[in-house]
Parts: sequence; structure tokens; C-alpha cells
Amino acid sequence: MSFESPLFWPAYMKDGVLHVLDETMVPGKLKYIPVKNVKEAVAVIRDMKTRAFGQFLVVLNTFLLELNAKGDILKHLQKVAQELNNSRPTFPFAEVTGIVVGAAQKGAANGVDPRVTVGKTVQGFLAGIRARRMQRVQEIAEVMQDKDSILTHCNVSGELAMAASIAFSQGKRIKFFATETRPYMQGAKLTVWELQQARAQVTLVPDNAVASLMADRLVNKVIIGSDRSAANGDIANKIGSYQIAVLAKEFEIPLIVLTQPSKGVASGQDMPIELRDADELLVFGGKKVFGPKVLGFYPGFDVVPHELITKAIAINAGL
Amino acid sequence: MSFESPLFWPAYMKDGVLHVLDETMVPGKLKYIPVKNVKEAVAVIRDMKTRAFGQFLVVLNTFLLELNAKGDILKHLQKVAQELNNSRPTFPFAEVTGIVVGAAQKGAANGVDPRVTVGKTVQGFLAGIRARRMQRVQEIAEVMQDKDSILTHCNVSGELAMAASIAFSQGKRIKFFATETRPYMQGAKLTVWELQQARAQVTLVPDNAVASLMADRLVNKVIIGSDRSAANGDIANKIGSYQIAVLAKEFEIPLIVLTQPSKGVASGQDMPIELRDADELLVFGGKKVFGPKVLGFYPGFDVVPHELITKAIAINAGL
Repeated sequence: MSFESPLFWPAYMKDGVLHVLDETMVPGKLKYIPVKNVKEAVAVIRDMKTRAFGQFLVVLNTFLLELNAKGDILKHLQKVAQELNNSRPTFPFAEVTGIVVGAAQKGAANGVDPRVTVGKTVQGFLAGIRARRMQRVQEIAEVMQDKDSILTHCNVSGELAMAASIAFSQGKRIKFFATETRPYMQGAKLTVWELQQARAQVTLVPDNAVASLMADRLVNKVIIGSDRSAANGDIANKIGSYQIAVLAKEFEIPLIVLTQPSKGVASGQDMPIELRDADELLVFGGKKVFGPKVLGFYPGFDVVPHELITKAIAINAGL
Repeated sequence: MSFESPLFWPAYMKDGVLHVLDETMVPGKLKYIPVKNVKEAVAVIRDMKTRAFGQFLVVLNTFLLELNAKGDILKHLQKVAQELNNSRPTFPFAEVTGIVVGAAQKGAANGVDPRVTVGKTVQGFLAGIRARRMQRVQEIAEVMQDKDSILTHCNVSGELAMAASIAFSQGKRIKFFATETRPYMQGAKLTVWELQQARAQVTLVPDNAVASLMADRLVNKVIIGSDRSAANGDIANKIGSYQIAVLAKEFEIPLIVLTQPSKGVASGQDMPIELRDADELLVFGGKKVFGPKVLGFYPGFDVVPHELITKAIAINAGL
């Protein structure tokens, strides 16, 4: 693959320290935050320094950071898992932390040092995920067609930009539109930046210009990611995905979603939606400018019902 | 009327100078920009220091500022009208400037000093508009019902907040939701601020949270303004209005639009849509952070087809 976006693999271990790309500094700076323990890991997750796939990398690698703990290592790993699980309610971290802790317990019952089991489990996981994501990038490139004009929302962690790079090498001419994605502006800060690195032409639009874009036939395809997938095909993704999906249906534009295994969640209604702090909307330049009757409503995600999804490109199972 | 919002009448003459509320400074500050001639008037319009109805006030009052010009006053008034007409393409300033210049020409043909005619015409206009807007505020209060939860977008120049104040005095319990309205944030900066002054409970939401709000039945009514109206009932309003209208239809929520006389525009397709400078999206902290393949698309307005409008509350004719 010719181009790998820093957002594709935004956290890596080096000399016993986890280096986590601070996505809130992109595109201004490529800065990695050193994370040395579970407390620092929970902080980078909760402060949204890293998102989506980056959070998974942090969750997995955090177990490696905590292997030197004194005392009952199995008990300690359970505590680590608990703290990670509680960091953000919309994410199914319990699934993956459960697998790591379960493997350690099972190994210990057979006389294997939990430290060895955890190391192997996490490394195996990471290698598997990487291979499966690389494969999905190829599949995304396949759905891109010559002369497509593709709208995306928020950020899909490198895969879209890398697929674009492959599509370009296949001679396809493709343009992109990216929403700003208020209030964190992941579209402006991350997606535009990485599509630019893939040498794509990309146009930034406000979140409220989607109907105009579609009505004027300036886009013919929508590709978005997902943070969770349900067994019935519903997905949860960054707030705004739902209205883009409704508009895509209204204007008869196909909606393609990158999904993951549903892990026992039956439907979108079973996914808790995290309400972020209203201050993320109400504080300007560090100051709260409004009185007490002024509130903010900022759900981090919304659910796209499966009826609105034209095609799902799943990450192959395993995780 | 108990409460008058500064946004209801954001420009007034005092000692021969037009004082224009700098809406870009609200809610931080109530600052009025002194405007002494047509050049300064065009600047406040083009830089969007004032918007919508404020622009009409500026256009009308600018003729009063230019009455002391030397030479052929009729020719000068025509030049003033031309400069105002060219300031922003989406607005039908030519209509109102044509009336003022036409009255001056007709008066002059009958021996009346154009300065006198313009003075009377503008003053008569302003008094008439004020009375008609006051009346519309009453009508808006009538459509507000006890326990309504009303979503609005951008800003309707005082009328919504003043109607809320009347509705409260009638014992109605009403809540409001306001979109941020990227990229100028008129919802956050103006609407939230003036609804707060009217003692309303108001909740700010990102532009991309509208489908979530509606799906969760957190709003039961949408009230927006319009910048232009067409004879067939289509309207042009701040970008984002169109997608809110599509979503309102999808979720069966009534959409109420404050409209004005159509002045010969047959349909929404006859309204030119102003494309604002892409830098308004692409410049962060004064710096352009992206390369040349990164573009911005920011139409200032979009058109809501009349089929999506449940009820129009027109300003009574005259203007």
C-alpha cells in the first residue's frame, strides 16, 4: 500500500510507553502523548485525544502497560478492565477487555503466567486487526468508481484516505466532500487533512449544507464509519450520521457504512448514547457567556437504522 | 409589548449618523458601528456585521446619509442605490432602493426637492415596517401553544424572542432549541442570547443533531425566518433551513416560516444563492492550514420548497 495515514494506526508502543496521537492537535501538529498507565489511558480516552479505532488501540495496549503491577496480577487486570470499561459509555470496551482478562484467567488456571498470556493475546489481536483493516481498505477502494463525488462525515481513521490512494493508483478520478462535524470538527481537522495527504481533492462543507449538496447533485455517494454495529444492521456513529442518512434516502444517494461485528447488540435501541458535557457547546474562548436557563444538548452519537444503509462493508470478524 | 430585543431594530439614526448593531460582537458586547456614508454602509452589509432585517434598515437609512451630496442629487441617489444593490446578490435590495429613487424622481418632476421626498419616503417606510413587524410578533405568539418545544435556526431578528415574551405573559409554557448555525454561529450568538433575555429556557444544539432531536420527539414545532420569498411559496433562508425542512417532513413536525412579499420572484429557482468565501471555513486562528487541493463550499442560503412549509406567517404587504 502506497500511503498509510497516521490516523490508521494512531497509537504504538515504544520502550514500554504507549505513544498516542493527539488528534485534537491535528492538523496543526503531529504530537504523540506518552501514556504510561491505565489512569493516563482513561484520560486520553475521556478527553477524546484519540477516538474510535485509536481508543481500541489504547484499551488493548493499556494491559501491556500494567503488567508490572505488584500483588495479585489477575485481580489487577480486572481492575484495569473495569476502569477502561467505564471511560465512555457508548463504546463496548467490555467485550475486548473481557477477552484479555478471560485469556489471562484461563492461562493462569493452566499454570501459565498471566503476563505471558496477556502479551500474546494483545499482540495477536493487534496483528489480526491490522490485517483485517488493510483488507477492508481494499474493499472500500473497490466501491469507489471513476468520477465519484463522495461525501463523508467525521473521520474513519485512515481507511477512506488510504482507499482513495489505491483508487487513484487504479486511475479512478474521485472527489470528496467532508462535513466539518461540529463541535469537535473532526471532518475539518482530520478527514480533510488526511485526504489532502492522499492527494485527493476535498471540499469542506458546514454540517448544515448537506441537503444543498445533495439537491444540487454535487455528491453521488456517501461513505461513513460506525462506532458500533447491531445484529439487525443498525449502527451508531458520530452525531449527524442519522440526518445524513435520512437526506441520502430523500435524494436517492447510496449510503455505504463501514461496520464491525455486532457482539450481541440486537438493535440500535440497545446502544446507550453518551451525552457530552454541554460546556462543549456553551463555552466560548474559555468563558461561559450565557445564564443558567441556557442549556446545551450534545449527544456524541446517533443511530442510523439499517433501512437507510445501502451497503455495509464489515471488518471481518475475529475481534 | 414588554420586551424589545436589540435585534428587532438593530440600526437607528442619531445626530446624522447611522448606528448599526455589530451582531458579530453579540453576545460578548452590545456595540454599535457608526455609519456615515454609502461606502461604510456597503462594508457593514458585505462583512455581515448586520444581517437580514438589519440590512434593510441600513439600505433605507443610507439614503438619508447621502442627502448632503453636492451636484446632481438625483444622479447621486441612483449611484447610491447601485452600490447598495451590488453589495450582496441574494438580497432584493433593488426593490426598495428603486422605490426610494423613483419617489425622488417623481417628486422632482413635480418640483419637490428630492431631499424632502427621500426623507419622507424613508421615514414613512420605517414607520410602516415597524408597525407590521409588531403585528407579526403577535401572530407568532398566537401559533405558540402551551407546552410547545420549538426548534429554530439562525436568527429571526427579535421577533421570535418577543413573541416568546408575549406567550409567557399569556401563561404558556414553552421551551426552545436553537441550532448553532455554522459557520457564523448566529444561533449560538444571537438567538440563544435574545431568547435568554426574554427569559425563555433555550437549549443550544449542533447543526448535525436535528434528526436526533426530532426522532426523540424533543421538539414538536419548527419556526424559522426567511430572507426571500417567491410567489409559489418557496423561500430562501440561511443554509441549513432546507435540511431542517426535509427532516421536519420525515418526522411529521410542522414547519412555520416567517415570510415576506415575493416581489415578482416566481419560485426558489429564480433566487441567486450567494457563495461565501471558502476562507470562512478554511482559515483557523487566522491561518490557512490546508494545501491548494482543499476547497470550501459555503452557500450562504438554501431554498426550502413550498411543499415542505406547513404554515407561512407573512409580513403584511406594503414594502
